[in-house]
Amino acid sequence: MSSTVNAGVYIWKRLASLGIEHVFGVPGDFNLFLLDQIYKVPELTWLGTCNELNGAYAADGYARIRGKPAALLTTYGVGELSAMNGVAGARAEHAGMIHLVGMTARPVQKAKALIHHTMYPGMDHGIYVGMSEPIRKTHTYLMDDATMASEIDRVIIEGVKSKLPVFIYIPTDVVFVQVDASRLEAPLDTTIRNESEDTENDIVKSILDLIKSAESPVVVADVLAIRHGGRDLTRELVDLTQFRSFSTPLSKGVIDEDHPTYGGLYNGIASFDGIADAIHGSDLVLNVGPLLSDSNTGGFTRDIKNTNLVSLGHDFVQVREQRFEGYHFFPILTQIFEELKKEPSKFNLPRPSKSQKLEPPRLNDSASGPIEQSYTWQRIGRFLKQNDIVLAESGTAQFGMPDATFPKNTQYITQIFWSSIGYTIGACLGALVAAKEMRNPGRVVLIVGEGSLQMTVQEIGSYIRFGFTPIIFVINNNGYSIERAINGPKQDYNNVSMLWDHQKMLEFFGARTETGIKSSSYKCSTVEELEVVLNNEDFASGNSIQVPV
Amino acid sequence: MSSTVNAGVYIWKRLASLGIEHVFGVPGDFNLFLLDQIYKVPELTWLGTCNELNGAYAADGYARIRGKPAALLTTYGVGELSAMNGVAGARAEHAGMIHLVGMTARPVQKAKALIHHTMYPGMDHGIYVGMSEPIRKTHTYLMDDATMASEIDRVIIEGVKSKLPVFIYIPTDVVFVQVDASRLEAPLDTTIRNESEDTENDIVKSILDLIKSAESPVVVADVLAIRHGGRDLTRELVDLTQFRSFSTPLSKGVIDEDHPTYGGLYNGIASFDGIADAIHGSDLVLNVGPLLSDSNTGGFTRDIKNTNLVSLGHDFVQVREQRFEGYHFFPILTQIFEELKKEPSKFNLPRPSKSQKLEPPRLNDSASGPIEQSYTWQRIGRFLKQNDIVLAESGTAQFGMPDATFPKNTQYITQIFWSSIGYTIGACLGALVAAKEMRNPGRVVLIVGEGSLQMTVQEIGSYIRFGFTPIIFVINNNGYSIERAINGPKQDYNNVSMLWDHQKMLEFFGARTETGIKSSSYKCSTVEELEVVLNNEDFASGNSIQVPV
Repeated sequence: MSSTVNAGVYIWKRLASLGIEHVFGVPGDFNLFLLDQIYKVPELTWLGTCNELNGAYAADGYARIRGKPAALLTTYGVGELSAMNGVAGARAEHAGMIHLVGMTARPVQKAKALIHHTMYPGMDHGIYVGMSEPIRKTHTYLMDDATMASEIDRVIIEGVKSKLPVFIYIPTDVVFVQVDASRLEAPLDTTIRNESEDTENDIVKSILDLIKSAESPVVVADVLAIRHGGRDLTRELVDLTQFRSFSTPLSKGVIDEDHPTYGGLYNGIASFDGIADAIHGSDLVLNVGPLLSDSNTGGFTRDIKNTNLVSLGHDFVQVREQRFEGYHFFPILTQIFEELKKEPSKFNLPRPSKSQKLEPPRLNDSASGPIEQSYTWQRIGRFLKQNDIVLAESGTAQFGMPDATFPKNTQYITQIFWSSIGYTIGACLGALVAAKEMRNPGRVVLIVGEGSLQMTVQEIGSYIRFGFTPIIFVINNNGYSIERAINGPKQDYNNVSMLWDHQKMLEFFGARTETGIKSSSYKCSTVEELEVVLNNEDFASGNSIQVPV
Repeated sequence: MSSTVNAGVYIWKRLASLGIEHVFGVPGDFNLFLLDQIYKVPELTWLGTCNELNGAYAADGYARIRGKPAALLTTYGVGELSAMNGVAGARAEHAGMIHLVGMTARPVQKAKALIHHTMYPGMDHGIYVGMSEPIRKTHTYLMDDATMASEIDRVIIEGVKSKLPVFIYIPTDVVFVQVDASRLEAPLDTTIRNESEDTENDIVKSILDLIKSAESPVVVADVLAIRHGGRDLTRELVDLTQFRSFSTPLSKGVIDEDHPTYGGLYNGIASFDGIADAIHGSDLVLNVGPLLSDSNTGGFTRDIKNTNLVSLGHDFVQVREQRFEGYHFFPILTQIFEELKKEPSKFNLPRPSKSQKLEPPRLNDSASGPIEQSYTWQRIGRFLKQNDIVLAESGTAQFGMPDATFPKNTQYITQIFWSSIGYTIGACLGALVAAKEMRNPGRVVLIVGEGSLQMTVQEIGSYIRFGFTPIIFVINNNGYSIERAINGPKQDYNNVSMLWDHQKMLEFFGARTETGIKSSSYKCSTVEELEVVLNNEDFASGNSIQVPV
């Protein structure tokens, strides 16, 4: 006789098997039964966020650092719809999440009851399920006891493999449906496999030929290399080949910036001098994990000829003019790397670039006076330490940080494609949780403008609540500066409240004498003031939550 | 030769013609050109909120007080999706809004460019338009110059008439399309008309017959009477007939609670004693604007026989067993009222109820000790003054406030059907703006739990920024109390951060000595402490922003 387990526990056990340790979200009356089951799965800990959008952002930030999909739980209607923009961002930038949505019970759905969180009499309770269609890879709406367990598995597997959001809709009564427990003995198979092994071998062979014969090969490691599990592989490829290597605005840090091969950040013609030339002039650009959006390509000024290009995508591979739809770079690049490693000399490797390593120009050497953008970003770069995780908010921070130089093994989170302001405050919580799970030895440093901060500020309270100690730079530049740059430099619509006292923020949210939670806040209006703070050892230690503004 | 005006100005002028004076929302690069045009229409003022969800809540609160649809502006993808839950709440509770969404320019859409706020290469830029389908009455996606102006008119008219959200999607280049300015000389016709005048007359006649012959007629005035412009008409009907009158949890205040006919709040068997009996035993229940959701009907325990019922809905009218789909109560009730008024004696009017007026029981007469729910709500009721606008947050506040007694002409905002926590903090901003436009002589009083507050707290900063002085009661009850009542009274998922110092909130957001913005905050843990504050004249004056916690 086979034993059973309820569907709620089944979901949590399957999620725990992925190696994740926390679940983000907000409780609501249609997900409480499911939440009750989480306490039966001790590998998982519930982490409630202040609201669902922030929860989705946190899940996204977590997924970027852990390289695994985050779990996000919301409730029917009010919760799932609040999270939409955060989930869409994860869809755009491949920060996978498994979004569990608690729904009305099946008998209540059948009766089409006018229960709270519905909208009108006779409404099909399933209509919100359709709303997330464009922002998810797949979903399951658990209505049928017989297929429930296999559906949960299918959706989780697709979530892991695609790195895109997937949804599981769970009516409250479904939590208690008994499913076959023995299924849990077979681990989920999340291995990436391409359709045809023969085609894969042909692709590998032609790329190896190109590598062998190239005169000025370069590696451009873009963000989908990181998201789709290819960061380490790309680094090893660069170590082995010694080809000149580049990052992009979204992938900054993918290659250590002190690596002898590292040539800088490629952003089309908006790159520092020499970078676009080196890439556009190369006879073999190995472009791993491309994401060719406007702000990741210098406004579409990338100019690499197909005849010189090998593009290794997550859903296509292109070798010069030939495109293979549906092929994933991971097994292909793995094979390529193994072949090269077996006998490097056969491929004339290592083959370091003959041209001189490009070093970024020092933009502003201020030692005093007003704090200018040209000073700020490079200076924050010099403040960073090995193993730090850095988040640059949409807006000036993310357009400025490419100018900085990162120390070894810096992990960088920015959302320059989806570009939702307020994102990093939520994402930072997720990054803090992921860093804790991974015992990351570095600090977590958040750089955010005061306008973006106003979008999602409450989650600073969650950092304090859960005992985290990030360093938070609030760039107080009087409104939506990036928008002023685009349109309406003097229009009042680009204003935000200038009345907030950021010096009181940590105190308000909980870091005070009587709570015993240590914090520091500094106000810096000049370079001198900022230098004092940046050189303050206590500040730099990251041992308590800190805000220089 | 006819003069022209650009489509941006056209939209703003049409909105201004409705009599609204403010536009809510958040700027983003795809709506900045449209925002530029607002300065050419001096009747309108832009009011930026901290984020889009709060903007939608503010629009909803504004619409409830003004009785006109609010205007909400968001940007492509990130903005419109963030607002979804707030718009859905307005759909559910008929707080109409005209949601303007700035989109990518038409040539960029045609090229399917991988621009920021899209999600993947080759994406149809219009896919987000489909996502809002279930939560809107209608929409227009302005792609065709020739039909643009008429489409704008159609959608605004439907928004006004339906009191439901409508969407206008505006590619950035469309702002500068020239449309015929002479159209603006013809005002929009937003009059509610029923399909067949004959049927309407038949309905009126049969209802008049029922009114004439009823022995124990009552009026149950529900929330859609308010939303669909029938509040004053219903009040006049009650004045004229002197029939016993009742409100519901969602419509509390629709009839003045000191009115001689007022019998109390009808919430099925969860009403105070005598109320359900009076209604269930009546031989004619005139139910204006019903919204029969679980929490508005005592969990579906309303028990009115069809043979005794006249239901006057916004999209159906039911006379005993006969239902007329698509008929709107407003023209019908107007006719009924006019007929009755012409010759009241013919209908044996006024006909006051012979039964004694029901008075709510005093639940808790504490003068000292811990603050209990049974004390809190009725006490806040006694604190209220004529013409106040009161907002009760989803959760304990909205389940408690029905116990209170309101002074004359109190306007009440709660969202017990859609039930999104955090709603009232945004809605309060909208109510403050609406009250200012209408020169409402009362105060605005917000009652919110600390868990809900954490969802949307930043908008408190907007009250301060724009010079408003609401009175804010923060009910600090250690987590999601309403959820504890439903499930998991001791589960940690119902916890929220208890570290926030609400005494520092107004200071953090801007009310400080150096800004010159006056505020007061009080912490009350006992009845004695709360009584001192409630009896403090300065506090009660509503002249500065105040928080007793």
